[in-house]
Amino acid sequence: MNYPSRLLEDAVESFSALPGIGRKTALRLVLHLLRSEPERVNHFGQALMRLRNEAVFCKRCHNLSDQDVCSICSQASRDQSTICVVEDLRDVMAIETAGTYRGLYHVLGGIISPMDGIGPRDLQIDSLEARLTENNTRELILALRASMEGETTAFYLFRRLRDKVETVSSLARGLGVGDELEYADEVSLNRSFIQRTPFEATLSQR
Amino acid sequence: MNYPSRLLEDAVESFSALPGIGRKTALRLVLHLLRSEPERVNHFGQALMRLRNEAVFCKRCHNLSDQDVCSICSQASRDQSTICVVEDLRDVMAIETAGTYRGLYHVLGGIISPMDGIGPRDLQIDSLEARLTENNTRELILALRASMEGETTAFYLFRRLRDKVETVSSLARGLGVGDELEYADEVSLNRSFIQRTPFEATLSQR
Repeated sequence: MNYPSRLLEDAVESFSALPGIGRKTALRLVLHLLRSEPERVNHFGQALMRLRNEAVFCKRCHNLSDQDVCSICSQASRDQSTICVVEDLRDVMAIETAGTYRGLYHVLGGIISPMDGIGPRDLQIDSLEARLTENNTRELILALRASMEGETTAFYLFRRLRDKVETVSSLARGLGVGDELEYADEVSLNRSFIQRTPFEATLSQR
Repeated sequence: MNYPSRLLEDAVESFSALPGIGRKTALRLVLHLLRSEPERVNHFGQALMRLRNEAVFCKRCHNLSDQDVCSICSQASRDQSTICVVEDLRDVMAIETAGTYRGLYHVLGGIISPMDGIGPRDLQIDSLEARLTENNTRELILALRASMEGETTAFYLFRRLRDKVETVSSLARGLGVGDELEYADEVSLNRSFIQRTPFEATLSQR
């Protein structure tokens, strides 16, 4: 493309380096910014730089945080005996937004994936093990995705850590609440049968 | 959503203020930046701010530029007697990338659209008229979109400016080169018939 301005080209190139943003979309976004108030654009630029330069990862759970210890880890009212292991911070956000879980988290920073060259040493597993040893953790909840890599990671964690806690559990998988049987995928439907629960137990959850 | 960090929230909010970017996409893009090199993110932020604060519009054609007079207007080798009128800078980029046109441009900065409250006074029409009077412009090419608003704008310009130049022309519209007749839309196909050209004239264009 023939850019009328180096500054424009630079901004478009920066945007189109983002995943899923092509050059035409990048140009559209940049032209939008060009028509926005200068204060908004400055705020945008500053927000990106501040995030990259100032945000830290919680030294306990490795979630993104504004302080050394994140707001969840430092909250005494949360159940300190339960740790939910997730892949990245989006999972923490989803679980926190859902609102039922009141324990702590541990963010692995990825999952074991030999295809991508990611092994156990690349993830925050040593620090998880140390947390279990130091603290009085009773239950470890593995909330990892149901893919080959996710199940491999869950199994690895189970084998390595099962002796350090009373219970290792994983999230129930099955039909989504409100799903119609006829439209459900077969894997979820089968899992719903295998993990079926006593009817009385579901009464209290409504 | 429950953000683990104010800095994260701020960056996500900034991204999701862009057109077509929802909150989930914004989060995905921000997490990508969070994993990028700090230099890249700083460059990104600076590029946006510099574009907004330093880029100017060419005082002749109103295209985006790094100087007072843009690289196209200041190029003596270009045909100074022809001005192509376009809606915005993306049109200039498309025509320049195509590479045939060697004249000058005039960027209106929009088209007449009563629904959006945009009238002739909101566009760079006075300055276009002044350019025609001052300079020795022979042909005005109206390269506006083929919508109701585009045709209205073209007709308005034609009525107002036709006495100031020898020729007012508009871009040929019809079948795209390589289009199959059976898949062409009816409007383009009809336009191809109405604007048909002598066969000999097309020989030189191959």
